[in-house]
Amino acid sequence: MNADLLSALQAQRIETPSWGYGNSGTRFKTFAAAGAARTIWEKLDDAAEVQRLTGIAPGVAIHIPWDAVDDYGELKKYASERGLTIGAINPNVFQDEEYRLGSVTNPEEAVREQAIAHLLDCVEVMKQTGSRDLSLWFADGTNYAGQDDLRSRKRRMRTGLKRVHDALPSGTRMLVEYKLFEPAFYATDLFDWGASYSHCLAIGDKAQVLVDLGHHAQGVNIEQIVAFLLDEGRLGGFHFNARRYGDDDLIVGTSNPFELFCIYAELVYGANSADDLTKQTAQNVSYMIDQSHNIEPKVEAMLQSVLNCQESYAKALLIDRDLLQEAQSKGDVLAAHRVMMDAFKTDVRPLLTELRAEMGLKSEPIQAHRQSGYQEKVARERGTQTGGGGYPVKEKVRS
Amino acid sequence: MNADLLSALQAQRIETPSWGYGNSGTRFKTFAAAGAARTIWEKLDDAAEVQRLTGIAPGVAIHIPWDAVDDYGELKKYASERGLTIGAINPNVFQDEEYRLGSVTNPEEAVREQAIAHLLDCVEVMKQTGSRDLSLWFADGTNYAGQDDLRSRKRRMRTGLKRVHDALPSGTRMLVEYKLFEPAFYATDLFDWGASYSHCLAIGDKAQVLVDLGHHAQGVNIEQIVAFLLDEGRLGGFHFNARRYGDDDLIVGTSNPFELFCIYAELVYGANSADDLTKQTAQNVSYMIDQSHNIEPKVEAMLQSVLNCQESYAKALLIDRDLLQEAQSKGDVLAAHRVMMDAFKTDVRPLLTELRAEMGLKSEPIQAHRQSGYQEKVARERGTQTGGGGYPVKEKVRS
Amino acid sequence: MNADLLSALQAQRIETPSWGYGNSGTRFKTFAAAGAARTIWEKLDDAAEVQRLTGIAPGVAIHIPWDAVDDYGELKKYASERGLTIGAINPNVFQDEEYRLGSVTNPEEAVREQAIAHLLDCVEVMKQTGSRDLSLWFADGTNYAGQDDLRSRKRRMRTGLKRVHDALPSGTRMLVEYKLFEPAFYATDLFDWGASYSHCLAIGDKAQVLVDLGHHAQGVNIEQIVAFLLDEGRLGGFHFNARRYGDDDLIVGTSNPFELFCIYAELVYGANSADDLTKQTAQNVSYMIDQSHNIEPKVEAMLQSVLNCQESYAKALLIDRDLLQEAQSKGDVLAAHRVMMDAFKTDVRPLLTELRAEMGLKSEPIQAHRQSGYQEKVARERGTQTGGGGYPVKEKVRS
Amino acid sequence: MNADLLSALQAQRIETPSWGYGNSGTRFKTFAAAGAARTIWEKLDDAAEVQRLTGIAPGVAIHIPWDAVDDYGELKKYASERGLTIGAINPNVFQDEEYRLGSVTNPEEAVREQAIAHLLDCVEVMKQTGSRDLSLWFADGTNYAGQDDLRSRKRRMRTGLKRVHDALPSGTRMLVEYKLFEPAFYATDLFDWGASYSHCLAIGDKAQVLVDLGHHAQGVNIEQIVAFLLDEGRLGGFHFNARRYGDDDLIVGTSNPFELFCIYAELVYGANSADDLTKQTAQNVSYMIDQSHNIEPKVEAMLQSVLNCQESYAKALLIDRDLLQEAQSKGDVLAAHRVMMDAFKTDVRPLLTELRAEMGLKSEPIQAHRQSGYQEKVARERGTQTGGGGYPVKEKVRS
Repeated sequence: MNADLLSALQAQRIETPSWGYGNSGTRFKTFAAAGAARTIWEKLDDAAEVQRLTGIAPGVAIHIPWDAVDDYGELKKYASERGLTIGAINPNVFQDEEYRLGSVTNPEEAVREQAIAHLLDCVEVMKQTGSRDLSLWFADGTNYAGQDDLRSRKRRMRTGLKRVHDALPSGTRMLVEYKLFEPAFYATDLFDWGASYSHCLAIGDKAQVLVDLGHHAQGVNIEQIVAFLLDEGRLGGFHFNARRYGDDDLIVGTSNPFELFCIYAELVYGANSADDLTKQTAQNVSYMIDQSHNIEPKVEAMLQSVLNCQESYAKALLIDRDLLQEAQSKGDVLAAHRVMMDAFKTDVRPLLTELRAEMGLKSEPIQAHRQSGYQEKVARERGTQTGGGGYPVKEKVRS
Repeated sequence: MNADLLSALQAQRIETPSWGYGNSGTRFKTFAAAGAARTIWEKLDDAAEVQRLTGIAPGVAIHIPWDAVDDYGELKKYASERGLTIGAINPNVFQDEEYRLGSVTNPEEAVREQAIAHLLDCVEVMKQTGSRDLSLWFADGTNYAGQDDLRSRKRRMRTGLKRVHDALPSGTRMLVEYKLFEPAFYATDLFDWGASYSHCLAIGDKAQVLVDLGHHAQGVNIEQIVAFLLDEGRLGGFHFNARRYGDDDLIVGTSNPFELFCIYAELVYGANSADDLTKQTAQNVSYMIDQSHNIEPKVEAMLQSVLNCQESYAKALLIDRDLLQEAQSKGDVLAAHRVMMDAFKTDVRPLLTELRAEMGLKSEPIQAHRQSGYQEKVARERGTQTGGGGYPVKEKVRS
Repeated sequence: MNADLLSALQAQRIETPSWGYGNSGTRFKTFAAAGAARTIWEKLDDAAEVQRLTGIAPGVAIHIPWDAVDDYGELKKYASERGLTIGAINPNVFQDEEYRLGSVTNPEEAVREQAIAHLLDCVEVMKQTGSRDLSLWFADGTNYAGQDDLRSRKRRMRTGLKRVHDALPSGTRMLVEYKLFEPAFYATDLFDWGASYSHCLAIGDKAQVLVDLGHHAQGVNIEQIVAFLLDEGRLGGFHFNARRYGDDDLIVGTSNPFELFCIYAELVYGANSADDLTKQTAQNVSYMIDQSHNIEPKVEAMLQSVLNCQESYAKALLIDRDLLQEAQSKGDVLAAHRVMMDAFKTDVRPLLTELRAEMGLKSEPIQAHRQSGYQEKVARERGTQTGGGGYPVKEKVRS
Repeated sequence: MNADLLSALQAQRIETPSWGYGNSGTRFKTFAAAGAARTIWEKLDDAAEVQRLTGIAPGVAIHIPWDAVDDYGELKKYASERGLTIGAINPNVFQDEEYRLGSVTNPEEAVREQAIAHLLDCVEVMKQTGSRDLSLWFADGTNYAGQDDLRSRKRRMRTGLKRVHDALPSGTRMLVEYKLFEPAFYATDLFDWGASYSHCLAIGDKAQVLVDLGHHAQGVNIEQIVAFLLDEGRLGGFHFNARRYGDDDLIVGTSNPFELFCIYAELVYGANSADDLTKQTAQNVSYMIDQSHNIEPKVEAMLQSVLNCQESYAKALLIDRDLLQEAQSKGDVLAAHRVMMDAFKTDVRPLLTELRAEMGLKSEPIQAHRQSGYQEKVARERGTQTGGGGYPVKEKVRS
């Protein structure tokens, strides 16, 4: 195995989200999973299992207040003892009753202030956890034409983002996520990459765009957005998942693995760019999983997600860039396309087996997990917690 | 005002859903509405307010077990005293823990039997409530390629539908709803009208297709499906709502009023067809609202929904069919289109004011509702009930 | 009738495209229309008929080289004699054989230079016609993953746009159109508003975004893009048409009249903004029709298009902004929405009849056109010209 | 290599379309390809090159009248001498001027009769060519609401299909293709699989549904339609191509190879079904390519298409059905999914190299084609033929 390839694969990082280890569901039903994590401590235990088996997923994104604790030093220590770090901080400005008509874009000033205060609180959490990224998703939007003034909402968004931006410590960033729809069904305030990008440009250098794979209209070419933002120096991170219809939040790479490969291809290419801005931007992209495992075992689903990213990345690393560029420059359409396809068609599982041997990992992580008895153990210890539909309610839970 | 027009408008019927009067939400949050109905009795009270102000919405669809009661005779009586009737019975085969992988299509036979037993129970409820329609929606489907065998699931669906069909009392029907996606994100077992239609053809004369306006892929022409099913004698009913993206479940007629008009145009045209099957089918279509009022007042939202249907129906009645047919037969594309547009452009509000005068109703239902103090009264009496995300949980609630 | 309303309606301007008067079609077939204009002179004659009957469509966008003439002074004079002006100049960088793999983004430098040279030629035409707008649409893109380097193409686009921008005379603008797909089916170089906007920001003040109603992914909220770009001072113009599926290029306002109304609502609102940049931007928006009339009579289709814009504009002018703002600021979701709907539901045809009387126009433009014998006359004089599929070939035609 | 696997791969058949070897384009431009076939004889020469290199593409679908000849016996002989057979007959009822408003659904009876007469003529051609399939695609539809009566058009379609069906010789079939849109943009008469299926059911046993991969709304699960139609015994054939947006008609397998794999998975599974109807239906499916190679070399593009189908089929054959069924029956969601993915991830190129060795073929068909000098030879002999936009015009061309 090529040493550079090995080194690149060992250096890959995928952050898993704390909320991916707990019960989740659709608006119709949250099915109770045996052993689903009930607290941030249990979520970290689960994340440690994923890290133990993959070696490339030490970071854990947390959600405030779902994962709020009294002492973040203690949380960091708990994580560190398990080979983990606390990753992106994800504020919640969509579950207070006050946010019915929006958070930072709410027509009412007091609500906007409440939202901004929470965001600023999360900046404080970042300082305590040492997190680099504040990951911002807003449910803000409207359901009916005329419900609110679109330009005013845009301006409120900018004001809110700016205030948070300016409170960010040096060396940190805010990642501004966009989404076509849900839970807003007429107009979402941050409705596409262009909207997020425009705000980022206006508010400052610490603002970067976050791309969630499930948040686009049908047909939209995501790898092109990735390429565009890399070239503009404004791509900050990803929320990985898979979709066919809406924001389906399935395991990344399951519905269209070729798309995931094409996205990684741009990222690998950008990270090796001769252009400094593109290169630096690509090398600082945060890779985070954001999914809902409604019908499948949570830890195994997360393992599968990390492994799918690993396979896509490995394939992207195999693209013969010289051959590709030669074909592209000659306008040899099909030869160029075949260079991409050759990498995609390669079965990288033997390569990853070799990688795991070098990393001291079990060669078959899923099988190892199934044989470990971990799932049975947590099911026994944690039981099966039933709940309502959809997302967890906002109250923080502490064991 | 033309007497036929008056008579048609007075005869219009829109069924409102009991669940539209209670709290509902997205997977992210259910905002608590002050005065939201907590029990089937309160839901009937709210429906009575809608009927009082519109005169065309006496029927109330109920959901089992959310609205289950010990004595359906009592329920009928309660409804009847308020000028209401119990409409379609809506079983729930998506909220038991056993239904994680499907109900009637579940790979496990015991779960399929549990689902069918519940559906048969609902047939018994129909007998007690005198309902004509059993309205069937299945969340059944899969999230991942290979998760289950698509043909086997199709056959299980047919078997389940057939067993329920054969238990239906004479004079009743089952309405088979389809949906592109959600909560299944790879394949939904009843994925489009063609799937529902094929099953209906196979299982018997009491099976009809139900069209929910929010359950189609982008771009699909719903009025054409309506026309097709009318001509085949297999259109049974509607779930009305509005959408722009997914199954947004907004107030019907708010996102694209022209589409609603075109749908009503086919229904009016079908109900006056020279073809007996088409005519009879169109005249027996059940019109039901199925929406989620997440951010707006529930009773007012329902009023608005009924009124939007009324306006669309009125416009559809105004289409000059002779002129239209003449232009169509001559291939006069734009003249034909303008006949449709002329009806759509007509402001029917004066006509509806006249209608309401004849029906002894207030001329401005929304205003009348706002002035009535109803909302304030129920808010006082019922309070504000908070809950989890999404749909109500399955337990029946009884005051 | 309110004097401001009258004044606004008289001042409305819709530019019609020369190519809308000639034969056009889909890739499958161009049906020959009797009397379709064969030369730019005949196209101007047709445009004059539209202007004669509407009074709000004096501008005619032209396409180079389809409409190229030896003496643009003569063209201006011919137009002027008919009450017309030459509007936007539309270059053609998609029909030379060299453009198979793109024009300004082509991997081959010589082809890029050829394209830029043509664009610069068109700037010269602008000077001669006195046109304010250079309207740029690029077919550039790729069909297969890997076919070309997405970031390199983006940079070539920027370079090309910049060179043209810097050659623009004072007081003129370039309008940068985007399109999701067609004729490129993997990645279009200017794929959405965000891409056009980013380029405009980078290249200079004379670059503005052009919104074509048919160039978006399904579900995208166009009025929100309009609002966003107005607020950023970067909305330059529209290509009006209607679509349900792809870039259908039907008569504007026929598939979803409510959407057109919502777009006009933002434009009217922007033009009255307290914010100078927004106001000035909105007041300088160019309104152009860009459609393919494949099965309907061309002049009548264009008339209908202009009238549909007029009706939408009239309705947008009727929105009660004070009431709307009051409801919005109180978070009264449904009251705010109803303010919009009240304007939309208003039948503005009587108002427009009154307007036409004041403007000295026939009250029923379509009827007047049909009765005028114009169509029969041009059919006699011009005959029926058959041709190939799709768009005209590039050669200029001169009588 | 497993003998059954070998045998299956050798028996695979992909029909290539005559029109795929000639110039084609979008509505904007048909780029002239050097050496593009100008006559049916040249098209057969090109198809022979594809068959020479792949060994699995002997059938050639022809288009009437583009490929009409005076003596079909001569055509069969010409094909046979090159190892080819004449495949599906594709009538053309979309390029006569009379078809502006439709062919078999045209409001005018004379036009409908003209269309049916052409279809019946094509049935006669079938008899002479020995073709099993009459492949029917209709451009019929409407562009504007109200333009024509949707139910009347449906009935005219059924009448037309029935008359052609009843003229089919024993042992032959009609394949009824559907399409969401283009060139009709309001309503296409055969708008989805359900519409085609309903007509097939009504008209008789020789009518089967044809699935074109590019003719669905966004998000639609095609493999599920395949499974459904197989189970109903009504799947007749495919038009293979790739798309991301509309009916993009790119090389099959290039935009989402996993989708093509999932479709083949259903076909392989159906062909081995215990259910006789499913099995027989699956074994009789016709596999045809239908693409537009607008920017890439035509013969190479066709080779690539056939090879992409071969790879997908090979992967589908590798699915471990026993393991899959076991996981499915246990409700082991992720294990079942992984069985599918394991087959998809397998690099089948070594297997296909082995297959080609056994079939006496070159191991690298694309490379062999490029080295053969075939493209240069036909470019020299045939030259570069320029033409209009889009599809060829209807006139038959004969050398």
